[in-house]
Order: sequence, then structure tokens, then C-alpha cells
Amino acid sequence: MSALPRAALPGRLQRAPEGFLQPAQIREVAAGRRGFLRSAFAAAAGLRLAGAARAQPPGEEVILRPQPWATSLGQPVAAFPYGQPSKYEKNLMRRESPGLTRVSAASVAFSPLQGMFGIITASGLHFERHHQGWEDIDPSKHRLMVNGLVKQETVFTMDELMRLPSVSRIHFIECGANTGMEWGNVAVPTVQYTHGMLSCSEFTGVRLIDVLDHLGYDRKKGRYVLAEGGDGSGMTRTIPMELVESGEVLLAYGMNGEMLRPENGYPLRLVVPGVQGVSWVKWLRRIEVGDMPYATKDETVHYVDLMPNGQLRQYTSIQEAKSVITTPSGGQMLLDKGFYNVSGIAWSGRGKIKRVDVSSDGGRNWRSARLETPVLSKALTRFNIGWVWDGAPAILQSRAMDETGYVQPKINQLRAVRGTRSIYHNNAIQSWQVAQSGEVSNVQAY
Amino acid sequence: MSALPRAALPGRLQRAPEGFLQPAQIREVAAGRRGFLRSAFAAAAGLRLAGAARAQPPGEEVILRPQPWATSLGQPVAAFPYGQPSKYEKNLMRRESPGLTRVSAASVAFSPLQGMFGIITASGLHFERHHQGWEDIDPSKHRLMVNGLVKQETVFTMDELMRLPSVSRIHFIECGANTGMEWGNVAVPTVQYTHGMLSCSEFTGVRLIDVLDHLGYDRKKGRYVLAEGGDGSGMTRTIPMELVESGEVLLAYGMNGEMLRPENGYPLRLVVPGVQGVSWVKWLRRIEVGDMPYATKDETVHYVDLMPNGQLRQYTSIQEAKSVITTPSGGQMLLDKGFYNVSGIAWSGRGKIKRVDVSSDGGRNWRSARLETPVLSKALTRFNIGWVWDGAPAILQSRAMDETGYVQPKINQLRAVRGTRSIYHNNAIQSWQVAQSGEVSNVQAY
Repeated sequence: MSALPRAALPGRLQRAPEGFLQPAQIREVAAGRRGFLRSAFAAAAGLRLAGAARAQPPGEEVILRPQPWATSLGQPVAAFPYGQPSKYEKNLMRRESPGLTRVSAASVAFSPLQGMFGIITASGLHFERHHQGWEDIDPSKHRLMVNGLVKQETVFTMDELMRLPSVSRIHFIECGANTGMEWGNVAVPTVQYTHGMLSCSEFTGVRLIDVLDHLGYDRKKGRYVLAEGGDGSGMTRTIPMELVESGEVLLAYGMNGEMLRPENGYPLRLVVPGVQGVSWVKWLRRIEVGDMPYATKDETVHYVDLMPNGQLRQYTSIQEAKSVITTPSGGQMLLDKGFYNVSGIAWSGRGKIKRVDVSSDGGRNWRSARLETPVLSKALTRFNIGWVWDGAPAILQSRAMDETGYVQPKINQLRAVRGTRSIYHNNAIQSWQVAQSGEVSNVQAY
Repeated sequence: MSALPRAALPGRLQRAPEGFLQPAQIREVAAGRRGFLRSAFAAAAGLRLAGAARAQPPGEEVILRPQPWATSLGQPVAAFPYGQPSKYEKNLMRRESPGLTRVSAASVAFSPLQGMFGIITASGLHFERHHQGWEDIDPSKHRLMVNGLVKQETVFTMDELMRLPSVSRIHFIECGANTGMEWGNVAVPTVQYTHGMLSCSEFTGVRLIDVLDHLGYDRKKGRYVLAEGGDGSGMTRTIPMELVESGEVLLAYGMNGEMLRPENGYPLRLVVPGVQGVSWVKWLRRIEVGDMPYATKDETVHYVDLMPNGQLRQYTSIQEAKSVITTPSGGQMLLDKGFYNVSGIAWSGRGKIKRVDVSSDGGRNWRSARLETPVLSKALTRFNIGWVWDGAPAILQSRAMDETGYVQPKINQLRAVRGTRSIYHNNAIQSWQVAQSGEVSNVQAY
């Protein structure tokens, strides 16, 4: 990851707030030849017109004479029966981090959080983490077996599952290794690579508890569930029955209004809200009810937390409260002094986000950000706050608090307990440094 | 629309609940050689195991020996940097209704509601309605002019707009002509064509009131806003200032986490929650503040309601409470008797959905459906309810009530007031007839 080539980075001009000006216009700004918005929104609270006359932005002639698109017959409907993003958005893509793993089939593609809005992740930008690559499984051939401590062991077709009572819920999914590079102060350059193993979707499916109730599971002895994937990695994870009994665990086939994407487990995956992504077993083919944890490879050898004393923490599945500013963020550039909308996301595996504070001076002073609604349990929450940049160096941070009262820690607080050799469960406060040039970069601030 | 060729219909085997079985398996079911789920879920409430032994579904051997996808190295991450649906989902697409208009650039592509889940519309399936086609406008060349009764007339670049305070909100958008064919009892065959000018997304943008406040609009005289699009149709619509002052009207650039799609107005559109889609002006290039309604072509000649007395209702913009069952729905087929999850969507331009009732006997008896959360103002609400089909003919209906107490009317109630010559604002209860064969079709039931 430290070998990340610059070519793999998203372009600086890729996205808001610096996304749409042409390079020549950006050079003009850098040379001080434009004053737009310098004093436009005087302060976040007031939103009143600043006294200074506003410089005429260039290019106003474009609205005074008809543009080609205003004088022609455009494209027909259903030109794309399945729609695609604008050609001007093609740099906004998920990206692999070259060198992170030896095989691209057992790797990660990160979501471009720096250019994303709101809480819903467009499915085309959903992060990927595979252990032996992804397959596009024929749903008419896919089966789900439910066995173990149930009265009636059963094999379901997809058609059968989709006739059962269905629920739809919005939840985040985060890989346990998200932000893992920051344990060792690698300072990965962009939020895509620091936090991009994170997405949030509306999932539709059947509550696992309804199926287990229906098949008559052993409520006393059957305190664990094994979930097994149908891909070549043989992914298997233990889920405590309390989570299933909460009604939150889903056998999901739908994501953001359509069927799951192949890379996200089509046609069936487990949804385990609040729990790290590896437990959301993709291409789900088997659920077994058992009387003890299964201690599979992927919960004993991998996905364990290496502590300073050399011991390993197991089954640390819940994703604690966390937040990050997505714009401005590393690799972006502030064009000019003046007002900026600082925007980010917060989430907690324990429930709802209660508050997000934002600092522009490395954590000395904090202001509470505005949370966009709806604020949902175990889902991303979007926050926004206005900030007037005075042109001096600054360090932007966000700090989430969830409804349990838990407060997102600083990285040195986490390291004091967990050391620096962990991979998983880094939920520390992220710092973005704004240089006098306007360039934003990843730093670790204490 | 009555000339709709069968070839344009989605295949019966396209989607749940009959989506994934192979034709040979469906023939087996039709011949009575399978009993799966016939008595599986005994009743919606109980979810208890039915007494009868469950027939072994065919194809269980597939899980007993390894499938190819379980014994191979799959596809790498970022094989699609921008992800796509499964190849098995390619029939789920938006579709033009041939013959509805003379030119495909001034037509409609309908969303395939029969195969969609939850409340979020995948942007690739968002409906399209253009008046002179769509364009993929270079955002660095796009401008928004704000003029009229403001102290400081201004032209904004996209970069400038995206630096302003931002909000994200989930709202439905429905064309005023949605379900328009049903005024005349055309009985369009599928829910895609009856109700598919309807989508729901998370929109991100700037509140128009913040911009008008900032530029100093005339609060006393400036009671109307004109919104003007940048495409060749010169779409212009009047928006009452009260809607703007409510804070709900947005200058939106984001949709479902990414930039708007070109067909949905990239890079900027107006969002007017609760109001018919035509007012959500796409490719938005100008906002003018005025002292009276503008009486533009698209609000005087088009988008007016023809009443029985020959007069026209104008400015009937709010979309009243409405609902529809999306599965089972016209063109689908019930494979067998037994339990089905009946699922649909409800929405109101006046606020939140309070209740949805479902009938399986053409409106004589009603049961309240379960509403999925979150239930949001001026957004789709997903409802689900269990239903055991006894094999006899049935008529499925849903009836929405919103938080104002308004109840979705029957078609004959609407016709008594509005006649049958309207195009717009048909929010009547939709009826789906289930034949003994299991085939579902569109009927008008009183």
C-alpha cells in the first residue's frame, strides 16, 4: 500500500469542490485573478450577502447565447435501457490498491468517498473485498441449505426464498480492515484508500429468524449460526444467535431496489447490521445452527486483532462509532479562501449516530455539524457544516458520538490499548491537513 | 399505448416470485408435480411449520457436489471499475412504450417496478421523460443564472454551487401523467407501464431559499419563481415561493450518492418534493424571481387537467396519496397455491404515508400492511403483507392513507369528479386480477 503509484490516485480535478473548472481556470485562480466566492457566504450561520462587490465569473457569455444542447434534438429515451453515469464522471470509480495483495481476485476495490454524496452508495461504486474472486451465479441453480439444530433440514431455491415475508432496511457495511493502514502511520493519500471499504445500501430480503422459526430451530442449544459462502474461498463465519433473534440478520437478495450485484454476492448474501463485512457472507449457500462457535479459519487465523502482548482478540465483530470528512479530503485542493461546505459521514455498529463534531484546528476547538435526515440505526449518517477558510494552514477532523454515548477515539488513545500491529477495527479520528497552497493531505494529528 | 406489442413486455419469467425457475421446472409446477411451499408458511401471522411433509425440491444435488463457482478462482476486484448488474438481470430494464409519442426524444421510458424492491430506485432504472431528448452537458460549461426580483443577479458555476451549504434528502418523483392511460380504461398490461413514471432517490444539493436569501430576493413582491431548463425544449415552470420558503426545494446535483445521471438533468436539476416531475426542471440554467405566475406553455397548454365541462384545471401540481402492488402484478404468474409476500409502494405529495390497506377480494375486505422503515415525507414507502392464495380467482388492491387523513380513491370516485378525458393526476386504486391459472392481469374493479 505504501508503494501506491501516483497514477492510481484519483485526479485532483476529479470532483467537487474543485471538480469542474478547466485546468486553465484553476491556474487563473492560483494566480489570484479571480475572486469568486472569496467573500460570498460571509459565515455559515448568516448566509447574508457580503458587502464586497462580487467579481464577474468568467464564461458568463455561455448563458447569454444558446448552447448547442439548447438548440438541438437530444438523445432518445431508453438510449441506455440500463442507465450509466455521465461521461464527465468516468474518473469516479472504485479502485484497487496495487500491491495490497498478490492476487487481484483476493483483494479490495475501494469506494471513491471523496466524490460521493448523502448516505446511499450507488451500487456501481460499492466497495469490493473478495477472498477468491467473484462469480455471476445462475440464480436458477443457486440453493440455500439450512441444517444443523433444526427440526426440518431444508434446501431452498431462490424462488422459494422470494415468496417469503420480505423486509427492506438501510444499513452500512464496512470491512473490519477499513482504515487498517493508519495503524502504522502509513498515511494513505486519499479517503478512497483510508476509508473506502465502506458502503451503505437499502437491502431487501427475508429475516433469518423467520426461516429458523419456520424450520423449528433448537432455541436452547442452537446459540450459534454458521454462514457459508458458495465461492471458492469457502468463506465461513460464526454469527451469535442473539443477533439473529434481534430480527436484524437478513437473507438478502435485493440492494438499492434491484437484485444484488455479482460482486456483492448475487443472488443471496447475509446482512448482519453493525458487524464487520466479512460476516455478511456472499453467495450464501448454507446456514447451520450449532451449539458453539465454529472457530473457522476466517475467525481464528484471519480477522483477529493482534494486541501489544502478542495475543489475538477473536470475534471482535462490531464496528464501533466512526466518522470521516469526505470533502475536503486528501488529494483535493481548496481553490481559494472563503466559504466551504465541509461534508462527511458517520456510522456506528451499536445504533444511531447522536452527534458529530468538527474541528478545523486539529482538535482544539469543536463545532457540532448538522446531521442530514434520516438518521438510521447502523446506517451511514451524512453531516455538513460550513467553514470559512482564511488561507492559513488548518487541520480538519470529525468526531462521532453514537446513541450509547460512545465517542470516537483519537489514534493515540487506540494505540495505547491496541498497539500498532493490528489490521482491524481502527475507528480513530481522521485528520486532513490543509496547506497554505490549498492542498489537502492525510496527516496523523494527536 | 393500446398498440403495445407483446414483444415489448417483460418476460413472465423475468422476476420474483416466478423469476428464477427454468421453464422446464415451471412446467413441472403447472403439471402438479411439485408441492413446494404449497403449505409452507401456514399464515402470515404465525409463520409456523405446516404439518404436511414438504416435498423435496428438485435440484438438490447442486448443493451436494461442488459447483464450478465453488472450485475456481473468480473474477478480480475492479473487473468493472463501475459495477453492473448480473447478466441474469438483463431483462430488468426501463422500457419505452412504442407508439406513445411520435419521437423517442420526446417520450417516456418506464421503470420496471415489478422487479424492484424497497424504496430506493437504482439510478440505472430511473424513469425518463424528456421533451426534446437528453444531453450530457459538460459541467465546466454549465451555468445557473439567478435573476428577477433579487438585489444581486448572479451567474453560478457548478464549482461555486458545490461549495455552498449542502443537504441530502430522499424523495419520490412522479410524472403527473403517471397512470394516465387508466383514465380511459386502457388496462395497460404491467405495472411498469401503469405506474413506472415513478422513482425515488436520495438527492443532494443546495436549498434554493439559501441562494435567494443570499442574493437578497424581494420577500414581498417575489412570490413566484420561474425555473428554466437548458435543453432544447425550453422547459419552464412556475414554482410558488411558499414551496421555496419551506426549504424543501433544492438545486440538486447529487442522486443516490453520485452526480445526477444525464437523463435526469446532469449536472443540475430542481427538486420540488411532492410536486409532479415536470416541475423538477432538468439541466437547470435559470431561476427568475417574479411577482406573478408565468403561465408558460408547459403549464397552460400542457400539464393541465381537462374536466368534464371542457374547462382546464391549471397548476394542479401536488401528487396526492397513491399506492400500487408491484408483486404480484400484471404479467406475472403465481406458480402454485400457498403463501405469497404481497409487496408494493405508497407515496403522497402531502407528507408521510400513515397506513396502507390491502384487499384480495376486490375491495370488500381489507387488512393493514406492514410499512417498512424509514417512512419519510414525500418519499416512497414500501409495504409488505402475507397472503395465502387458495387457487381461486382473486382481485388484489392496495389503498394508501397519508398523514393528512386523505384516502386514495377508487377510479369511479375520481371519474365522477374529473371525467375520463384527463391525462394527469390519476391516483386511483389499482386492481390486479389473479386468474385460476395463476396469471395476473390489469383490470378495473369498482
